[in-house]
Formats: sequence, structure tokens, C-alpha cells
Amino acid sequence: MRILIANANTTQEITELCAAAARSAASPGTEIVPATPRFGPAVISSRAENIIAGHALLELLAEHAGTVDAVVLAVSHDTALEAARQLMPCPVVGMTEAACFAACLVGARFGLVTFGGIETYRERIGQHGLAGRLAGLVGVEATPQETLADPAGVEVKVLAGIMALVAAGADAVVLGGAALAGMAPRLQGRTPVPLLDGIVCAVRMAEMLVGLGLPKPAAGSMAPPEGRASIGLSEPLAAMLRGR
Amino acid sequence: MRILIANANTTQEITELCAAAARSAASPGTEIVPATPRFGPAVISSRAENIIAGHALLELLAEHAGTVDAVVLAVSHDTALEAARQLMPCPVVGMTEAACFAACLVGARFGLVTFGGIETYRERIGQHGLAGRLAGLVGVEATPQETLADPAGVEVKVLAGIMALVAAGADAVVLGGAALAGMAPRLQGRTPVPLLDGIVCAVRMAEMLVGLGLPKPAAGSMAPPEGRASIGLSEPLAAMLRGR
Amino acid sequence: MRILIANANTTQEITELCAAAARSAASPGTEIVPATPRFGPAVISSRAENIIAGHALLELLAEHAGTVDAVVLAVSHDTALEAARQLMPCPVVGMTEAACFAACLVGARFGLVTFGGIETYRERIGQHGLAGRLAGLVGVEATPQETLADPAGVEVKVLAGIMALVAAGADAVVLGGAALAGMAPRLQGRTPVPLLDGIVCAVRMAEMLVGLGLPKPAAGSMAPPEGRASIGLSEPLAAMLRGR
Amino acid sequence: MRILIANANTTQEITELCAAAARSAASPGTEIVPATPRFGPAVISSRAENIIAGHALLELLAEHAGTVDAVVLAVSHDTALEAARQLMPCPVVGMTEAACFAACLVGARFGLVTFGGIETYRERIGQHGLAGRLAGLVGVEATPQETLADPAGVEVKVLAGIMALVAAGADAVVLGGAALAGMAPRLQGRTPVPLLDGIVCAVRMAEMLVGLGLPKPAAGSMAPPEGRASIGLSEPLAAMLRGR
Amino acid sequence: MRILIANANTTQEITELCAAAARSAASPGTEIVPATPRFGPAVISSRAENIIAGHALLELLAEHAGTVDAVVLAVSHDTALEAARQLMPCPVVGMTEAACFAACLVGARFGLVTFGGIETYRERIGQHGLAGRLAGLVGVEATPQETLADPAGVEVKVLAGIMALVAAGADAVVLGGAALAGMAPRLQGRTPVPLLDGIVCAVRMAEMLVGLGLPKPAAGSMAPPEGRASIGLSEPLAAMLRGR
Amino acid sequence: MRILIANANTTQEITELCAAAARSAASPGTEIVPATPRFGPAVISSRAENIIAGHALLELLAEHAGTVDAVVLAVSHDTALEAARQLMPCPVVGMTEAACFAACLVGARFGLVTFGGIETYRERIGQHGLAGRLAGLVGVEATPQETLADPAGVEVKVLAGIMALVAAGADAVVLGGAALAGMAPRLQGRTPVPLLDGIVCAVRMAEMLVGLGLPKPAAGSMAPPEGRASIGLSEPLAAMLRGR
Repeated sequence: MRILIANANTTQEITELCAAAARSAASPGTEIVPATPRFGPAVISSRAENIIAGHALLELLAEHAGTVDAVVLAVSHDTALEAARQLMPCPVVGMTEAACFAACLVGARFGLVTFGGIETYRERIGQHGLAGRLAGLVGVEATPQETLADPAGVEVKVLAGIMALVAAGADAVVLGGAALAGMAPRLQGRTPVPLLDGIVCAVRMAEMLVGLGLPKPAAGSMAPPEGRASIGLSEPLAAMLRGR
Repeated sequence: MRILIANANTTQEITELCAAAARSAASPGTEIVPATPRFGPAVISSRAENIIAGHALLELLAEHAGTVDAVVLAVSHDTALEAARQLMPCPVVGMTEAACFAACLVGARFGLVTFGGIETYRERIGQHGLAGRLAGLVGVEATPQETLADPAGVEVKVLAGIMALVAAGADAVVLGGAALAGMAPRLQGRTPVPLLDGIVCAVRMAEMLVGLGLPKPAAGSMAPPEGRASIGLSEPLAAMLRGR
Repeated sequence: MRILIANANTTQEITELCAAAARSAASPGTEIVPATPRFGPAVISSRAENIIAGHALLELLAEHAGTVDAVVLAVSHDTALEAARQLMPCPVVGMTEAACFAACLVGARFGLVTFGGIETYRERIGQHGLAGRLAGLVGVEATPQETLADPAGVEVKVLAGIMALVAAGADAVVLGGAALAGMAPRLQGRTPVPLLDGIVCAVRMAEMLVGLGLPKPAAGSMAPPEGRASIGLSEPLAAMLRGR
Repeated sequence: MRILIANANTTQEITELCAAAARSAASPGTEIVPATPRFGPAVISSRAENIIAGHALLELLAEHAGTVDAVVLAVSHDTALEAARQLMPCPVVGMTEAACFAACLVGARFGLVTFGGIETYRERIGQHGLAGRLAGLVGVEATPQETLADPAGVEVKVLAGIMALVAAGADAVVLGGAALAGMAPRLQGRTPVPLLDGIVCAVRMAEMLVGLGLPKPAAGSMAPPEGRASIGLSEPLAAMLRGR
Repeated sequence: MRILIANANTTQEITELCAAAARSAASPGTEIVPATPRFGPAVISSRAENIIAGHALLELLAEHAGTVDAVVLAVSHDTALEAARQLMPCPVVGMTEAACFAACLVGARFGLVTFGGIETYRERIGQHGLAGRLAGLVGVEATPQETLADPAGVEVKVLAGIMALVAAGADAVVLGGAALAGMAPRLQGRTPVPLLDGIVCAVRMAEMLVGLGLPKPAAGSMAPPEGRASIGLSEPLAAMLRGR
Repeated sequence: MRILIANANTTQEITELCAAAARSAASPGTEIVPATPRFGPAVISSRAENIIAGHALLELLAEHAGTVDAVVLAVSHDTALEAARQLMPCPVVGMTEAACFAACLVGARFGLVTFGGIETYRERIGQHGLAGRLAGLVGVEATPQETLADPAGVEVKVLAGIMALVAAGADAVVLGGAALAGMAPRLQGRTPVPLLDGIVCAVRMAEMLVGLGLPKPAAGSMAPPEGRASIGLSEPLAAMLRGR
């Protein structure tokens, strides 16, 4: 099985980090195929960047359509997730989506910790239909840079956020955002509830969906585009809009 | 990996049907362990039966605690799911829960077709927090007996239900209830959206959760019972309430 | 009129406490019939215990079906409420349900104070459809034992919880859980909003429902079971599933 | 116990009809005190009339404050209910509110049948926080006049509405609006679920609340007005705004 | 274009304050017509006063029907808004409604600061259907009197409220209540998000609606009353209920 | 005042159609500046196209930033609306957003008619927070081509959709999608509720927002990007991400 780990940021290092996490999470026999968009923001941290990255991501996916068995969106905003799901002939899973759904399978309500702003995560979880199972969101005030300089200090802040969410009723906590990637194993021993890493959950969810072998929808809002004209797009992407 | 397929009905045939479905869905290396409760309703079809079966199911699970890696509740009402999840040291997945969550990973909104009453399914999906992603429910008027006598006629009714849900906006349709088990492969070719079978989805979800290797919650509403006294329960169940 | 005060815990003392509260609340002419289950947890404080107690409660109710005019569930989790309502030929009222509905009749939003965990109360109130009228929940950190040793100290904590809920917009406060039973009259003088005791409200609600003289539903999700086979259940409960 | 049956319409006949229904529903010892406003619409059937009637109703209530033990609002729109509840020193119950809450105590979801427009009923039930328990609304196309001329024909229409709601999942059906008053006993024998009459439910709910003996809130949004100046109001109403 | 600035309080000073704010906000060519009710509360601050004022307001509007192009309700509770909208042949806008909707057009979620109680504002915003976009409400503890005596001190409190709402995720903040009228320009320079004044927004919204030139609804819940009988109302109001 | 009419489709004719509609709706003194993206789908009708068009739209907006006073998104999907709002220094209004908000100002609940699929409109209205005010959606089965060949026949279908929504409780109906642009005036005379055209409403809303003169948020999720690196973007767009 080949799983595309599609970053929506153009920072190659993030792709590699995510690919490494994906490889460590994947089942034997699963091949991880990392990919980085040709254009777009270095790191998404605003609404505008998220939209731009959505196009870049779809272009990237179009290049790999037919050559992979599933796609994991390696971007904590689940950028362009529904569009990617519609476009691609194979399963597509968002990393935060995957972690939130996994959290729902192990507890009643869950929380999410990230760095910085939490509002767009609140919106995204609402769009996933899971607002009723969200116990709370914590935005840790720490730059990714600080993570490098004082990782122990940052981990203390993240732990405090996790404990606040447990106190608010979370049975599990999602670690959201690239800067928290890889932190789950280090913190798990110090927290009383499961910590969920997006990439790890998404790889396992993608494997599960491939295992289910479901057909591509031919009707409804997830049926692939067909006969759509466009200008100025990459040829693979334009071809997917035209359909077969 | 050993997965317990725990029926909550006392009808052995249903257990065997579900176990067969589970075996065909399981990954190589996954052992399916079927189990049927000692007491309770033959087939759950009322609120009272569902509660009684919940106790019978927990008693059954307690006997297997520590000997299996995951539990699939082979009952479309997701009977006692949250309690089982709290009680057991391993992942527990409900079959309707699993199918609904899988549906959310392949489409925007989903529908559910079952035989007979739909209200308790509506409630259960609401309790799963997925009401916002439910396009509709269809209760096909056909007894399980009719399924045996005129399977083709019943399938036509089920297909009509599926198409009604697609028209209502469903991108995927869950087949709910034991009487629909095994029907998905036969109908899939005639429907434009993916059909989701509860047992199949639950087995795959259980494998995924085992793969994640998450710790048991030690705090919150899913922390296992401890020091709880009881009378008149089976020894394994009483022991689990006492905890270690 | 005979009202069954059905405990779902197997602790006789709680039954007696609740029966006494019920007697003091009942109208002249109402007879209070206390009852304790034959098996199950001493005191429900986990999801698993709640499910087990549900079965024990239904067995208990089946023994009294036809001999009482109404049932009050003397358990703050409203254990197996909907199932009991479906099963029994007479009105059934949960004590927390009753207090929450009464609270809605005297104010715009209400709060709930209990000892310990609040998450399952949040879920239960959501299942009652009253999430939109819930101003908040407070879980006082005090063991039932502490209640005996330092009642005045515990009352101070409860009062603080009540006042926090008033500040959060509660026009009335429900006292939830057996450990708070009987506390309402002692605290009422020191709080600016009505305090609602579950048993008291449930007895009055049950009297009201008996007064309405509504027929038993013959259709829908509350129609009684009929023709349902089972094994290993108490004869009265099995008989109710078989129906007439 | 004295219960004020406060009409918000100025049509005396409706008051008398409601008073008669209230008397037949009341417990022995309960005195029914009918009252009709001094000004306002003959029969409320628009948003504007409902607001005007709210003032008329409050004026009416102010005249009776202190002389009755409870108030039933004999108007299916629950006109000025929250304001009346805040203003009066005794319990106040709306007839549709009462029927909806009673419906929630006997089933999972309920429906409502009325004559004519249903949108303002939908809004009102939403304001009561019960939208999640509403299975549907049916507006029967029949004028009150038609009710007089062809009562049997109208009842057939109402029955059709009830059965449609049962099919939509209603375990109980509220009959809303003065024109349907008194119809419940005649139709009950032909319907498989309980029918709830607003006045009957409200009288019983009012008796229950009087029985609870709850204090008047002294804080929050239901604390009575105090020190409020006004011009041009009836003296009793102005006095209540001034408070003591 | 003539816009009626209809106060629902009987305090002439408030009307004048609002009219002045309206004039400063209005486009060239817009004439502001201030009006104060003949009866009712001096200043609305309870549920009962709000209902009474609703009638007074409708009476006031009826006097101006046909002579103005739009109505702005100069009362922060959006008193009788839906009724006024149904009654009048021209657009009607509530000041808090207008500010909330404008807030939705400039940000994702908004907050509201007012003096005193916030619960009725929470209800009103819920009735506007905007609960999902409300980040929070802050009730500043400061009397209108204090505003006069120590305006700078009060502004500090209001600023603290605004900043708390920004921290809670508000992209814009509505200043609610007459006592905050005119404060927006003074505080705007010290806050990082837009402040929305109800009168200013309502005047602009009213102009916009007049510009759209939409017809009066002839069906549904906003169709004007017709053929409605009443007693004891002002002649213009009774005439509007009778219709043409 | 200069308002940018920014199409998100690359079909010049749609831009011109929208610009014409905008000009006819604009106040005297408002200049309409039409603009079409450099790349992207000819006409958006799938999730993927909508994401791609979002990038194209932002690129287009970046070119005009600072030269216009407001932006109207001339695309019925409100493509990239929140991102555009964050990015631009001036007000940004979506055409469907504007029509829905205007509908809320003239009625209680509204409906939406469009050609083809309705699910993404349902999602968009949910994201606007207006699900509670949506009476229903109708997707007329008629291709844009059919609109040209048999306009009268198509109008009959649209009228049927409108009347179905009125029957479902809509007080106003939004005409969604470019193919319905300009149809409102022709159909208004035959419908009993106001019809809302997206471009017309958006232009008026944009004028209103410019009139309010609100500052650009400097905090929260709508504060403009700053210091964001990117590759491969148009220079104006990259510059806006870098900020000043």
C-alpha cells in the first residue's frame, strides 16, 4: 500500500518530519510517499495562506492521482480536505480530522492543544460536525522557535494545557499543529489521558479506509468533477477537472 | 491480534454470522473470538431489551478482559458502548458507531437504512455527536423473516431506501442492523455511493486503534472503575468493578 | 395513589432516605412504595455500574408492574429511564429529569451541583434535550463520607457552587446525587434562587402525570415490547418482554 | 389553592371554555379563577397581536398578584410567559409549554398539531429549549368556523395530522390552540399515542409547582422588577414595576 | 428618505440621544424622525418592562406607518422587533440586531459588552439565530449614573470587557445598551477590533434595506395582519390590525 | 466609492453580468470595478474548483488592495470569503452571505433556490451560522443552457421551488447562483415573499460597511497576515502575506 503524505506548506523540512512520523506509524508493507507543493506559504498560519495552500495541495494531489492508494494531508488545518476527497479516486484523510475521530473512539469528549490561535481549529472541528464532543481548545503561547530553544519549558506549557482540558472534561487530547508533532510519546507518560498525534492517526485511518475497499462515490457532493473547463492550471489538475 | 466479537443478543446464529463477517474483514494475523451473552433478549428490538443486554454484554466482556486486544460490539444499537469502553483495558468499538465514523471519512453527510424503527438510531447517532452529518434515516418495512423468504424483494426495498437517502444528500449509506449484515457487497454494484457494513468497519477500526497503542485513560469519565462494591454480579464483572 | 420509589443502587439506606424524602413531598393520599434491586452496584459511580443497575432496575420494576400507579427512579443518573418508560404501563419519572424540568418552569436557565464528576450529568441533560437551558455544572470536591464528618464545611462548598452557577446565569439550581438529598431545605435560606431536589420534584411530577390519565402509547418508540424472547431473566421481566 | 386562568385574548368565550377545561382537570380543592384582559386582540393570530396581548396580560396578572397561588396562561402562544414569570410572586405556567414538557415526560420526541400557521409555534418551542425533542409540526387547514360547522370533518383532518406526526417519530402529540381545546378526549381513542391538552397539562403543572413551594428568585433574570419608573400604566402594574 | 428612530422607553432624553447618533450616522438626504412612546417604562431593564414597551412601541409605529421609509428600533433589547416587522409596510431594524449582523460581516465571531445583566441579550442573540457566532458576553458592573460621574473609570471597565472578549475569540465587539451609546468612537482607538454601535449600524442597515426596495411579504409569518378585531387599542394600531 | 466586483470564475461573461447587476444596484457615486481571475475554473461547480478559485480570487484581490473601498465576491459559493476578509484592508462581502443576511432582516426564516446541487450551499449557510434560520433549500433541475433555450419553462420550475419554500415556512427566498442572476425582478411579481439577489444585496451591504468606517482588526482571526513567507505566488499576493 502506498500512502501519499501531502504537505500543504512548502517547507520541505515539515514534509520530512511528517513522513518520518508516518513511517514509524505505518503498518509493515505500507510505503510512505512524501510530497511538498510547488508553490504557496512556507507555513500556513492565516486564513489566506490556507486557501492558497489548498490550491497548491490539489495540484500536488493531481500529480499523484492513480499512483497512490490513499492520501494523508500533512497539515493540521485539514486544508482543502473535502475538495481533495472529492477530487481523488482514493481515500483522503486529514491529520486533525483523523486525530479528532480517533479521540471520539476512545473517550466521550476531547480537547485540542496547539500553538497560537485556536479559532480556526474551533471552526474546523465544527465543520467536521464534532463541536458537541469538543471539551475545549488551548492555544499555548510559544513560538515554534521557542520549541527548539527551550523544548522542556515548552513541554511544561503544553502539559499545563493538557491538564486544563482534562479538568474541563476531556477524555483524550489531540496535539494539533506541526510544531507539536512527535511530542505525544514524550508527554504521554506524564498525562492521565491518551494523546493523539495527527499524522499517526491519519496514517492508521488511511490504512483502515484502504482496507474497507469502498468504491468512489458516483453521485452526491463527493462525486468527482467531470467536464469542467479551466485555464492556467497545471495539466494534471486540469485533466482531473475534465474527468474521463 | 485477538478481537472479541461480542454479541449483545443471545442468539448464537447472529454471533456466528457476525464472526464470519468479521473474519472476512480482518487483516491477516487478526484472530476473531466470537462470544454470546449468558442471558438476555434473543434479539434486541426495544429500549428495555437494550438495557438488559447491556448488563449481559458487560458480564461477557469481563470474562474476556485481558485476553483480547480489542472488542467489537456486534450489535447495531452500540449497546452499552461507553460503559464497555470505560470498563475494558483495551479498545472497544461499536458497529454502528464505526460505520458512521467511516462514512464521515468518505463523504460530507451520510444516511442509515435499517429494518423497522429508526428513532433509537437517531438518538444513538445524536449521542455519538454526529447529528449534524446525518442526511436521513430510512426504516425499511420488512421483517427479518421476509428477508429469508424473499431476499430479492427485500433488497429492492433497501435499494429504494438508499436512493432516497442519496437524494436527501447522503454521500454514503450505513446499513444498520443484523438483518442487513452481508447485504452491502450484493447491493454496492447497484448504488452510486459507498455502503458501509457495521461489522466490517468495526473490525478495521479496532485494528486501527490497537495499532495506535494508546494508553488506558487514568482520569476522566473513561477511567476504569475502582473500589466499587456490588452484589449478585458474576465474579469477573464484580472483580472489574473492584479494580486492582 | 401508589408511587414506587425505585432505587437503582443496592444500598438499602439510600432507598430509605429517598423514601422518606418522597413521603414528605407526597400529597395526602399518595402511598410511597420503596424498592431496592436484588443485584448490582452498591452506589452507581461509573458508566459500567449505571448499565448494570439499569438491568437490575428493570427487573425490580417488572415485579411491581400493575401494582403501582407511577414510578420514581430514585437515582440521580436517571438510570434506564427511557427503557423503564417504555416497559411500564404507568408513568415513570427520573429524579434528575424531574428537577431539571421543574427548573425550566421557574427560570430561563438552570445549573446543577453534584459531588464529583459532572460529565455524565452533562450527557444526561443533553439526552433530555435541555442542553440549551443549562447554565453550568459544578462538581463539588467532597466525598459522601466528608458529608457525614463535616456537613457544615461541605455545605459551604455546595453554596459556593450554587453561587458560581447563579453568577453564570442560573435562575434555579438542581441538587444532583443522593449525597445532596435533603440538603435543599437547609441551604435554601442562604441562596437567592430556588433549589430543586430530585426526589421531591419527581414525586410531584409523578402525581401530576397520574392526574393527567394519559393512555399508554401503542405505537412508536415507547410502545411496550411484545413477543420478545429472552433467556436467563427473572420471570416477571421475561413476561413483560413477551407482552400479552 | 387558587389558580388564575389568564386569557390573553379579549374574547370572553375563550376564557370560559378554558376555565371549564381547567375545572375539569383541577384537583379537588383547587379553585379556578378565570380572567380576561381589558384590552387587546379578540383572538391572537399574528406577531403584533401577541405583543399587544402580552401587555394586556401583564396588566391582568398585576391585578391578581397576591390573591392567587398560581397562574395558567390560557393562550397557546405562551404569550409573555417569561415576563409573567418574572413579574409574579407565584408560579406561572404556559399552556403549550406545559403540554410540551408533559409530552417529554411520556415519550422521546413529540409533535404538535394546530390550526393554521406553525412557524411561531416552532419558534416558541425553540425558545423553550425543546427543539431537539420536536418530531414535527402540522398546521391543519381548517378555520375555527369550520370546526363548528363540520366538527367530524375537521377531526378527520386533525387525526391525519396526528398520524403523520406519529409516522415522523412522535411518541406523543400536543394539541395546540384554543380551537383544538376539548378535542383530546374525543380523539384519544382513535390515536395510538397520548394527546396532550394545554390547559389540562398547565393546571396540573401549576398544582405541582405550588406543591413544591419554591421561593421566588431574588437574583438573576427572574428576580422581580424593583424601583422601575413608568408612565401611563394601570396602577397595579405600575406598582409591581416599582416593587416593594 | 425618512427613518423613524422609535424609542421603546418613555424617556425623552434617550430618544434625543439616539436621534443625534442616528443623524450623525445617516447618509446625506436621510431625515431622522425621533419618536417616544406615550406610555410604558422609563427605561427597560426587566422582562416585564420589555413586553409592556413592546405594545407601546407598536402603538407608536402605527402612528407613523406610511409616513416613513424605514424604522430603527432605538432600544437595545430589539423590543417587539419581529412583530414590528410584520406590522409595518416598511423595513424595520433593531439596533442590537443590526450591530450583531454587521459584526458577522467583519469577523468570524463577535462579543457583546453591556451594563448589568447579560442573560436576556444571550437569549435575544439566540433568537436572532446567531448563537454560533457569539464568542461571549460581558456585563460591566456600572450603573448609568456612574457613567456620568466617572466616565473615564467606566470606560476602563468597558475596555477590560472588550479585551476579555477579544481573548475569548471575538473579532468584533458590539456595544449594547443606551448607556454605551456614543462610547464607540472614544474607545475605538484603544481596542484592536472594530466596535459596533447599535444605532449607527441600524441606520445604515435601514438605508440599505430601503435601497433594496423589497416588497412587503404577502404570505408567511411576516404577512401583515388582516381582519383582526381588537378592543381598547389606539385607533391607528387597531386599524393596522384590521388591515385594508 | 469604488467597489470591486471580483468574480472567482474565469468566465468573463459572468463578470460582466455581475458588474451590470452591481451597477444597477449601486448608489449614485459608487463606481463598480469588475475583475476576473487570471486562472482557475470557468464556472465553479465542485469542491475542488472552489478551492482553486479561492487562490485565484485572492491573487486578484491582492492586485486591487488599496485601490478600492470594498469588495463584493461575485460568486455564489462565497468562495474564500473569510480569507479575503482577513487579507484585505477594506470590507469584503459575499453575494450569498449578503442575500442570506438581508433575508434575515426581512423575515424569520428564509429559503434558497439554486440550480443543481444544494449540499454545498447547506454547508456554506451553516458556516455563516445561519442554519437555524434556514427553512429549506431547493435545487432546480435545469442546466444553465436550458435557461437560455427555454427561459419561461425554467422560470416555472424556479417559481415552483420558491412556492415549496414558502410552504416550508420561508418568509423570503434567496436566488443563489449566477444562472439565477437577474431573475428576481422578473419573478418577484408572481411570488408572495421577497426574492433576494446576491449581487444586489452584496453591493448594498458593501456600501453600508464602507459607511460604517470600521477599522481593520489588529487582533484575532481577522488581523491581516504579517511576515509570512511564500514561494511561487504573484508578487502582490506574496507582498500582502509579508505585510508591512
